[in-house]
Amino acid sequence: MERFMIIGERIHCISPVIRKAFAERDAAPILQRAKEQIDAGAAYLDLNIGPAERDGEEVMMWAVQLLQNEFNNIPLCLDTANKKAIEAGIKVYNRDRGKPIINSADAGPRIDMLDLAAANDAMVIALCAKEGIPRDTEERLTYCTEMLERGMALGIDPNDILFDPLFLVVKGMQEKAPEVMETIRLISEMGLKTNAGLSNVSNGAPKHVRPIIDSVFAAMAIQCGLTAAIVNPCDQRLMETIKTCDMIKGNILYADSYLEL
Amino acid sequence: MERFMIIGERIHCISPVIRKAFAERDAAPILQRAKEQIDAGAAYLDLNIGPAERDGEEVMMWAVQLLQNEFNNIPLCLDTANKKAIEAGIKVYNRDRGKPIINSADAGPRIDMLDLAAANDAMVIALCAKEGIPRDTEERLTYCTEMLERGMALGIDPNDILFDPLFLVVKGMQEKAPEVMETIRLISEMGLKTNAGLSNVSNGAPKHVRPIIDSVFAAMAIQCGLTAAIVNPCDQRLMETIKTCDMIKGNILYADSYLEL
Repeated sequence: MERFMIIGERIHCISPVIRKAFAERDAAPILQRAKEQIDAGAAYLDLNIGPAERDGEEVMMWAVQLLQNEFNNIPLCLDTANKKAIEAGIKVYNRDRGKPIINSADAGPRIDMLDLAAANDAMVIALCAKEGIPRDTEERLTYCTEMLERGMALGIDPNDILFDPLFLVVKGMQEKAPEVMETIRLISEMGLKTNAGLSNVSNGAPKHVRPIIDSVFAAMAIQCGLTAAIVNPCDQRLMETIKTCDMIKGNILYADSYLEL
Repeated sequence: MERFMIIGERIHCISPVIRKAFAERDAAPILQRAKEQIDAGAAYLDLNIGPAERDGEEVMMWAVQLLQNEFNNIPLCLDTANKKAIEAGIKVYNRDRGKPIINSADAGPRIDMLDLAAANDAMVIALCAKEGIPRDTEERLTYCTEMLERGMALGIDPNDILFDPLFLVVKGMQEKAPEVMETIRLISEMGLKTNAGLSNVSNGAPKHVRPIIDSVFAAMAIQCGLTAAIVNPCDQRLMETIKTCDMIKGNILYADSYLEL
């Protein structure tokens, strides 16, 4: 079994520091957050440049080259609604340590992100949603199947699609959590890979409670078959949890020092 | 859904302090450990008096009355291989807050603990084992079915049997962990209840790692359907994990203060 795939979430234009760094092409804050996440165990870094309608192509090319030059071609997840920016990023992307991941397609208005992935031999996160929040497990699976069929028709290897069941906030939509777990289980039983935007689940919860909710949700979801997540790798409790899940599932061998490896 | 059942493990004759307290009928150390566990959220207390071949009946009656008088008839798990001691304990046991649990039957030499449970309207922990460690999931399920059939023939409500898939130590038997999870899932799908001797899984691991392994294993097992466990309720990380599992599964409602409740 492969190890759980940890995608670092912290290079995100929602952060004022990062937004400013993108705008001013200021490398230092971006490199610092990248280093922290790689040191903490991230296998991929998410690079969220926002809608980036004006200068998305330049920003994405600059950031991809900046990060890959500094960190031995660290693999990246290109995260924007701007398709041209994704294409530009992929053009300068080095695949030595893994394909780029496009974040994200869905079964509705963003379905053509699958075409973009196929045209560029990229992986893609596929949200099991079309318009708004899916009503139930069945609706999620319908969208999963629609995207799988389209992806396969386009020649994408199903292993290159990370199906995201849409993790929802427990504060307000608590009753949806078991549906998310069930969706992961059913998609995993089809032999497909899954991804989670994990920190959504604890949104709005007290600050000291969030790492607890995130880590427990992760352990339960990994037991259901979850294979990847976009997370804060600097959350120590969460990383201890993910490594321990990998050990319990036999993805890594037990050693007294397994948490340090 | 019912909340996860937490059975406190700390009144156990393997502890020199507790063994001495049983021998000398010294109430203070036993009451202190009971109070700590109840304050931390234990719903039941396990009362392990060891083989207790000489004075098991007197010790069990003394301890049951001591604990129930002091703590508002706290429900108990009577834990010894001495059947007469269990019978003696049940005679003085007050059922206001729950039936006594007999710990434990198995599908081999201890099968008659099921008869004892039936004769005394008690709950019983039923280890899915016969001779030594079961080889695989199928062997565990065979023993589960054998004990279920015998229990039902004796008139035991299946809800009064807590099937224990036999949690094994990850340090040395790491490859067995997924079997344990699968067994829980399959037994739960039959609508049956399950119990775990949780701290077995982290035996021999470094002290600071044990709460991490225990809590992650618990979260994964609860996702599979686990309904009860004998644990150290004074392990804060574990208790946070169990409460969060209860919240994610919808057994308790989300509130910002749910960890304090």
